This record gives sequence, structure tokens and C-alpha cells, in this order.
Amino acid sequence: MSTVAKNTPILVQKYGGTSVATAEHIRRVAKRVTAEKRKGKAVVVVVSAMGKTTDELIALSSEISGKPPRREMDMLLHAGEIISASLLAIAIEEEGESAVSLTGSQAGMITDESHMQARIEQVEGERILRHLTKGRVVVITGFQGVSRQNEITTLGRGGSDTSAVAFAVGIGAGQCEILTDVDGVYTADPRIVENPQKLPWCSYDEMLEMASLGAKVLHSRSVEIARKFEIELIVSSSVEQTPGTLVCSSQKGRKEFGEMEEVLIRGVAHNADVAKVSLLGVADKPGVAGDVFAALGKHQLNILLIVQAESHEGHNDISFLVPSEMLNQVEGDLESLAGQTGAQKVHIDRDVGTVSVVGEGVQREAGIAGRMFKALAAEGINIDLISTSNLMISCVVPQDCLEKAVQAVHREFLE
Amino acid sequence: MSTVAKNTPILVQKYGGTSVATAEHIRRVAKRVTAEKRKGKAVVVVVSAMGKTTDELIALSSEISGKPPRREMDMLLHAGEIISASLLAIAIEEEGESAVSLTGSQAGMITDESHMQARIEQVEGERILRHLTKGRVVVITGFQGVSRQNEITTLGRGGSDTSAVAFAVGIGAGQCEILTDVDGVYTADPRIVENPQKLPWCSYDEMLEMASLGAKVLHSRSVEIARKFEIELIVSSSVEQTPGTLVCSSQKGRKEFGEMEEVLIRGVAHNADVAKVSLLGVADKPGVAGDVFAALGKHQLNILLIVQAESHEGHNDISFLVPSEMLNQVEGDLESLAGQTGAQKVHIDRDVGTVSVVGEGVQREAGIAGRMFKALAAEGINIDLISTSNLMISCVVPQDCLEKAVQAVHREFLE
Repeated sequence: MSTVAKNTPILVQKYGGTSVATAEHIRRVAKRVTAEKRKGKAVVVVVSAMGKTTDELIALSSEISGKPPRREMDMLLHAGEIISASLLAIAIEEEGESAVSLTGSQAGMITDESHMQARIEQVEGERILRHLTKGRVVVITGFQGVSRQNEITTLGRGGSDTSAVAFAVGIGAGQCEILTDVDGVYTADPRIVENPQKLPWCSYDEMLEMASLGAKVLHSRSVEIARKFEIELIVSSSVEQTPGTLVCSSQKGRKEFGEMEEVLIRGVAHNADVAKVSLLGVADKPGVAGDVFAALGKHQLNILLIVQAESHEGHNDISFLVPSEMLNQVEGDLESLAGQTGAQKVHIDRDVGTVSVVGEGVQREAGIAGRMFKALAAEGINIDLISTSNLMISCVVPQDCLEKAVQAVHREFLE
Repeated sequence: MSTVAKNTPILVQKYGGTSVATAEHIRRVAKRVTAEKRKGKAVVVVVSAMGKTTDELIALSSEISGKPPRREMDMLLHAGEIISASLLAIAIEEEGESAVSLTGSQAGMITDESHMQARIEQVEGERILRHLTKGRVVVITGFQGVSRQNEITTLGRGGSDTSAVAFAVGIGAGQCEILTDVDGVYTADPRIVENPQKLPWCSYDEMLEMASLGAKVLHSRSVEIARKFEIELIVSSSVEQTPGTLVCSSQKGRKEFGEMEEVLIRGVAHNADVAKVSLLGVADKPGVAGDVFAALGKHQLNILLIVQAESHEGHNDISFLVPSEMLNQVEGDLESLAGQTGAQKVHIDRDVGTVSVVGEGVQREAGIAGRMFKALAAEGINIDLISTSNLMISCVVPQDCLEKAVQAVHREFLE
């Protein structure tokens, strides 16, 4: 762990919106932060906006405009974290410790100028470190930054996790605690599975797969940055003091937790908020798939899964998943895409979902796919599409079977 | 009037919190701003926080701390104007004009670091001008600035007027419109006097006296800056399109409005929110009065009026007025001050108010004081203290007579 003064460990904590939803919540967080400070740590706290503030600001803007300029939305939304950060600094001072709140801009979060989805270019940590060396708790607004042209930017939804990890990198901290309303990463969604288990740890790669396959506990970007700079993430409860889940490298995790035998499957992820698009009977010639996804790319869509089956008689079927809420944006383009690619038909299915197993054991154990498909079949669940990587196996199933599918797969591998 | 491109007049408008209280209010302001833009003007708009936002943020902070750090209060409160400014920019874009919102910091409002009552050091207008030359309406957060150390500051209550005038100076505009919920400056408070008249104009000095004597329409600091840099202020309604009140130099006003005969009294001001403090029987020796007000000065009190009568038998009475809400702060000091100064008694009277006549004619016409005192006497109102300057005559009267006093004096000079 890095140090500010000699032997002073740096602690970076991130608190989400539900953890700072009211003045009382903020006072509670302040007590917890103060306790850490009094253990001799240099403490940096990154906060989201209070509760539903961001949603309320968005609602205000949509009373005024159906399509507000992205630059102005960034300006508007960044007020939310300014409020929570300054209130938390006030609460920490009230607890008797010295504290200072900093905007993303003041804290040195330099981004490009892509409003509402800015990419981090650099974190200039000097100002944070200067305050830390003076014994102050530094409270920073998450989610937001500033461009080199002094324009306010935001990192997109879930950006506060990303901010927190980036600040940990910028000031040379080795760890970042993500404190939230769940107390760790579970083997499956506790609302669906009866006895999910809290993971003591998982690897960056496993976490990334789980996030991209529907697990909502951590934002992918934060994990990517953590992996790149080897920042250990600790996901735990902002209220209770129970141990959470450590997200770290495979090597570190295995060593730390004495995992001698391979864990085949770390968890089961699912995603109900997807729609399947199929271009049927596309001409089987080079460049067609490229045309399709280049055309969709201009919507900055997150394409979740692409499957192209064997061609027959010179024609292909290309299927892919998009987030349900994005479907309206692309629907108009799909007809013209069909024309361009010579597809005979475009088929859209909103009533699908994905169930996925994730784990570093997936690639090493040939039988896992078979066990998964059999477990689904035993419940009478029809598998529509299949996609695999070295870390996961993902199946598209009818949405009304999704819960049953998650339960069946969890039972097969994790109970 | 200054120009951006050749022949493009610059218009600076300031809208107060009630004028941007809801999304609907903001849309209405946007229409008005857009209309001005389409007349070929380069438009800068300075806004306060929406409605009661500032009060709500203060309430939140006091749920957390009885004495929040001033630096953090600045951080907290400056979020309010960020919300209103970005929403207004969105609304102007929705009306079809290009707009951009800027924080005080982005707009170049450089202040010292006296949190919650920062003094303006400089306005660096380049960024505003750059946007104006690109044809954008520039919407700026009022009330707030930034220090050279990149600390967020606020200018104190009413600071948005001050911001607007300072920005007018900074970008070389000759005028600043203050658009509010009243449609001008009146000869007396319309809630008290039956037929007050809207002033077509008044001088900077008269406006300053009226503001310091209780008129709430403009913040004194804004008028001081306007006077210093000869920025004409126009106070008018944010809703109706009636002509307002021009605040300018005596020379300009007289010439513009063809005021050949002297107007003796411009208006009647009053203030019910004062308390009278009297140190009775203070030793009549050099330095005593200095000690008293130096000791009170550390509270950054606004002492409204000081009267010291003739001494008799080596003793003086010193009386002064303080804003009622400040009385608690000084009450403890008064006893020790009494000891220091040898005062025989400290007397505090909360049930007082001031009625004042203001006008550049006051000094030139000897009989005005007599007419005022007679008018009060005719109503049976006892005058407690009297203070005069070359622009005003101010009387302390019992608070329960204050309305009657204002009516009597208004009738004598202005009906």
C-alpha cells in the first residue's frame, strides 16, 4: 500500500447514492469514515449523488426538453455530487475530523470531452495528496470530471465506481473499497436463488464477465481500470461491518484464500433487459457482418452478444442482443440494414433473457457446457442461442423461463 | 454600449430565484431571452438558484451541523445555481437558439477566499466573449466565484445582482437588467403605502441610501460596482414588459428624463428588522467609541446607524442600530463592553424601526427635516433618534408606529 507520510496507509472508499440518501445516512457514513481516519489512515471518500437526485434532475430537464444538449446535462447532473460531497465533509467536521470536499475538476479528474460518457485521460492527484498530508479527509464528487478545455463532463451511469478506482490509481493507493447496499458479490442474484453464497473473492476477469452478463454490483469500467493498474477492489456493505468480496488478480486471490483446487464456476449471472435481433438470410459474403455492426456502432450501442451460425445455400443468419432500452433507437435502422445486407427478414424478440456461468474453470473443464445445457433441458427450457468465451458460457432462453434457468444452473454448480 | 462583433450590442440580464422557480418559469425566461437574441443582441444571462433551493440546501446542512464550515457551505450552495443555469441553457436550446451555461469559475469570476462573503477581485471575460462571438447565449451562475487557489466561493446573500453587474463590467457592457418579481423601484413599499409611484429613474447614490435604509429591491454591492464603473442598471419585471426603473448617474438621469426642477425626495425607505443598542453613561474620553465599534467589528456586523449625543457631566450615551438577527451574536459581548467602557447601563430595544427620506434634494433644502419631523408629530409619533447625511434623513421610531410613519412621510413629500 502506498503512503502519504511514511507508514500512513491510504484508504479510498466509495459510497453509492443509497448510502448517502438522507442527512441521517450521511451522518452515519461520516462516523464510519471518521473511525477509519482515527486508525491512522489517510482517507479519501468518493460519493455519488444523494438517493434519487440524479433521476430528479433528469426529470426536471425532460420537463423542459425532450433532447437536452449533452454538455448541459453534464453541467446539470454534476450538481448532484457537489451537494452530497459537501454535506459529507460537513458531517465529518461535525464528528471532529478535518475534511474538505473537492469537485471532480478540483480533484484532478481530467477527461476527454465526450459529454455524458467521458473517458478518463489522467488523474492529477497532487491536490488530494496535499490535503491528505495536512491530515484532512478528502471527499470527492464521483461520476464527474473536467476536460482540458475546462468543460464539465460526466463518466456515464455508474461512473462513481470508475472515479473511485481512478483516484486510487492517481494517488498511489493499492486498494479501493466500494461500499454499497449489498455486502458483497454473490454466486447469483439473491432475489432469484434461495441460498446464494457471498464470494470471498473473485478475479478481475470473472467480475468483468459477470458485470457484462448482467450482474449489477460493479460497473465494468471500474473493474477494467482496477485490473489494468492492479488496484484491489473490496465490495462490502456501507452499513454492516461484515467482510465483503475482494476483487483482485487470480494469482493474488488463489494465494490469499488458499484455493488449491480449482473453483470451476464462480457465479451465475443473468440479464432480463435484453432484446434479440436476427437478420435472417443474409448474403454469405465478406464484409456483411462488418457493415451491420458498423451501422449500429454509430448509436454507441452496447452489443451484448453476437452469434452467426453456419451458412447454408449462400445465406447466413446473424443474431445479436442489444439492451432493451436501446431497441427503439435502432429499430428504424434495422429495416434499411436489412435492405443493404440483402437479409430476407428481420426478426426482433423482446421476450428473451440470458443465463450465464462465469469462472476461470470454464475453459479448463470440457464437461461444463454439457452440464449446463442438461440442467436447463431437465427443466424443459429451450436454449435459443449459445455463446462462449474462455471465462463464460451464456445461453439465450425465453424470458419467462429465466428465473427457473438461473435456479437450475446455480443448483447444478454451486449448491 | 460595447460590442462583440461590430454593431452587436451586449445585453446582460439577471433573473432572480422566483423568476426561475420551476421548469415552467425557466421556459418562460428562455422565451424572453431568445426574443432578445433575435433582435440581434449578444445576450448574457445571470441566474440565481431556483426558488427556495438555497434555503433547502441550508436546511439540509443544518440537519447535519449547527456550525458547518464556511468553505463547505460555499461548495454546497454553489450547486443551486449550477442547476438553474444548465436548465435555462437547455430551455434556450429548446427554443432554437444556441446556448451554453458557465459556472462562476468557468465564466472568470475571480474572488478572494472569504467564504460566504467573497469580494470580487477580477472578472476575466474572455471565455464569455468567445462564446458570444460564436452566437451563443451565455448563461452564468450568479452568486458564486472561484479564488486563485481554485476554491469555490460565494458572494453572500443577494450576490447574484453583484455577479451580474460585475460580468457587465468584465465584458464591457454598459447596461445590466435586473429582472425580478417587482417591476421597478417605488417611492415606498407598496405593501404599506396606498399609492406609491414607480420611479422612472434614480441615481446610484439615492439607490444606495435606499438599499442601506431597508429597500430590498437591489443589493448595495451591485449598485456600488455599477456606480464605480458607470454601468446603468434597469430594474424591471421578469414577467411583464413594462418599463422599469433606470439606476444611473445624476447627470445622465436628469438629462435623459428632462428633470429641470429638483426632485427633493426620491423615496421613503423603512426598516423594521433592527434593534437599538444604547450604552448609557459611557466615560467621555477619547477612544471609547473606537473601542466599542472595534469590538463589535469582529462579528462583521453591519452597524446601521450610530448616534452619540452631547455629553453631560463627563458622560456620554452611545446608541446604534444592528440588524435584529445579529443581536444574539453581540449580546454576550455587550456586557463586557459595558465594563470596558465604564458604561453605567446597557439598554437594548428590539421594538424599533427606521423611517427615512432619501433624495439628492435633501441637502439643498433646509426645510425638509422640519417637514418630516412635523409630519411624524402630527401622527403622534415620537422620534427616538435622528441621523442625517447629505442624501437622507433617518428617524428611529417605535416599531408599532412604523407603518403609520411611512405613510405620513410619503404623503408629505410624494403624494
